[in-house]
Amino acid sequence: MKIKYELIGNDGRARLGKLHTNHGTFDTPMFMPVGTLATVKTLTPEELKEVHSGIILSNTYHLWLRPGEDIVAKAGGLHKFMNYDGPILTDSGGFQVFSLAKKKDIIEDGVYFKSHIDGKKLFLTPEKSIEIQNKLDSDIAMSFDECIPYPADYEYAKASTERTLRWAKRGKDAFNNENQSLFGIVQGGEYPDLRKWSAEETVKLGFDGYSIGGTSVGEGKDVMYKMIDDAIKYLPEDKPRYLMGVGEPADILEGIERGIDMFDCVLPTRLARHGNAFTHTGKINLKNLKYREDFSPLDEECDCYTCKNYSKAYIRHLFVAKESLGGRLLSIHNIRFLIRLTEEIRESIKNGNFLEYKENFLNRYNNK
Amino acid sequence: MKIKYELIGNDGRARLGKLHTNHGTFDTPMFMPVGTLATVKTLTPEELKEVHSGIILSNTYHLWLRPGEDIVAKAGGLHKFMNYDGPILTDSGGFQVFSLAKKKDIIEDGVYFKSHIDGKKLFLTPEKSIEIQNKLDSDIAMSFDECIPYPADYEYAKASTERTLRWAKRGKDAFNNENQSLFGIVQGGEYPDLRKWSAEETVKLGFDGYSIGGTSVGEGKDVMYKMIDDAIKYLPEDKPRYLMGVGEPADILEGIERGIDMFDCVLPTRLARHGNAFTHTGKINLKNLKYREDFSPLDEECDCYTCKNYSKAYIRHLFVAKESLGGRLLSIHNIRFLIRLTEEIRESIKNGNFLEYKENFLNRYNNK
Repeated sequence: MKIKYELIGNDGRARLGKLHTNHGTFDTPMFMPVGTLATVKTLTPEELKEVHSGIILSNTYHLWLRPGEDIVAKAGGLHKFMNYDGPILTDSGGFQVFSLAKKKDIIEDGVYFKSHIDGKKLFLTPEKSIEIQNKLDSDIAMSFDECIPYPADYEYAKASTERTLRWAKRGKDAFNNENQSLFGIVQGGEYPDLRKWSAEETVKLGFDGYSIGGTSVGEGKDVMYKMIDDAIKYLPEDKPRYLMGVGEPADILEGIERGIDMFDCVLPTRLARHGNAFTHTGKINLKNLKYREDFSPLDEECDCYTCKNYSKAYIRHLFVAKESLGGRLLSIHNIRFLIRLTEEIRESIKNGNFLEYKENFLNRYNNK
Repeated sequence: MKIKYELIGNDGRARLGKLHTNHGTFDTPMFMPVGTLATVKTLTPEELKEVHSGIILSNTYHLWLRPGEDIVAKAGGLHKFMNYDGPILTDSGGFQVFSLAKKKDIIEDGVYFKSHIDGKKLFLTPEKSIEIQNKLDSDIAMSFDECIPYPADYEYAKASTERTLRWAKRGKDAFNNENQSLFGIVQGGEYPDLRKWSAEETVKLGFDGYSIGGTSVGEGKDVMYKMIDDAIKYLPEDKPRYLMGVGEPADILEGIERGIDMFDCVLPTRLARHGNAFTHTGKINLKNLKYREDFSPLDEECDCYTCKNYSKAYIRHLFVAKESLGGRLLSIHNIRFLIRLTEEIRESIKNGNFLEYKENFLNRYNNK
């Protein structure tokens, strides 16, 4: 069965909805924690449920290399392999090919590049990406695209966007998993006409949802928000919209204001590994000496396991002593922080005061 | 309130009992997981309870250096600091001084040595060790002793054992925490007359429990078992007996056969970090290629969270991909394995068939 998006209400362009999948329904807007290698770093599936995570993302490129899609398929698919029975989205590998591989060669058929693990020469095509994802058996697969670097000149962006559309069609034709849904990806760089063309042509191919790609590649915030504006108005109301690689609270708010339903980012777990925590008054670093005797929780308002049970002083101690429980406790908190942000945003959309919520949240977060 | 040991039954010299503490009662014989730095590596207190861990051990030397006993005291003691409300035993620091410090200078007053972290010169005395432990506020504190290296000549062993007794008395005199109990430690090296003397004199001082020290320092198995035999017969029946640093299943069985009630060892968590798991048919290393497509649990008979939910193939993948969840899943399993071993041993003592259980267990474990 394919996913089904249910639009429940709007507040301006912000959307409140539900996404029904074969592994359960979750509310949108939703933030997706990233489980790169079939594990959201340091956490168990039970902990992901405890923070009310509705769907997680896993990386096709990484699972292709380790353990290999055939082993995951033999285990009964990604859900069984990693013991997670909630919805899973897999990306296409496109972003990793462009971000991790130092030397790459893009041809019409696909991309030659070197493995980030052992330098082995690899070739990924739209068909191969879909074949891997079909085997992983995630709930939502993504089309293989080129993530255009920023800045890119118009001619390059145009040629790449056209190729991404041809790749999207090839991937859709190769797609063979009736229990999996497939999203198309809108590219077009920073050029409004290319974003419009990419959105319209991708929609014509007909996907189960649409992603706005090519963001979070070094462009400024305003450029990113404009990229969303230039694409989202051409996307259908009855399908979910996903902004890839975005996890900063301000960007989530700006995305939702523009009509985005789904976000993913490694930010909460990466911040956690380095001792950083989100709080309602901005990020803090637990390694800071000032937390040495601070026996209060990370964030007095947070309802997560970490905040209910541990002090800043203890978490600081774990980081100073290089104990891995520290990263685990911060991962729980940081993911919960973003999930709860989307919970509160959904409530504000329902109440018709999203913009007020956004302003209040950002004023506190930025200590204004 | 001090701890109270309740002897419930015997099977030969093997003892079945209960130890009542201010943080709950646990059955003996019991294996204690080690939480060196106020955390049993990778695990939460809830996970320790889920594996039915009755008491944990934490290291005075390590907590003295990081975060410092005064910070733990300000947090309200070790239980509150680490959010663990079950019984905790702290060691005295003696073993770490001798195992971690490269250069040391033992004088009558105490030990000069260098910090394993920054090489800073440190001085630990029996009084200081007790003062730190009083502040940590564990349920059971240990006397500061010298762990005699193996082999050691008779003259050295005798002089050291006599000094350890004087240190035990000094520690007892300095002890000042009415909610904490204090164990004495029997030394004496490999010499039966010194073990007897040390046991008798330590018992005369009057402690809440007794430990057999100076084992697991490179002596052979038979020597270790003899060290236990040479000491344990002089210990009172109404106090718990603790064999320090022992966690191999065979050694736990041999210790219990000789009347030991408590064991501790970093073995289950250290094995886990390196990809090793206990099973009923011996240890296995999950990094082995043969587990690549093995979708069975680590140990079909195990009732732990890991074995109920994950396959060898998945855990192998986590180790190959250097994902920390792997060490966490193996830590849960390995600790549960040893705790469950003691559960089964207690059942066998109750049923009067301990020796039969021991033989069956070891035959399978050693693949005989």
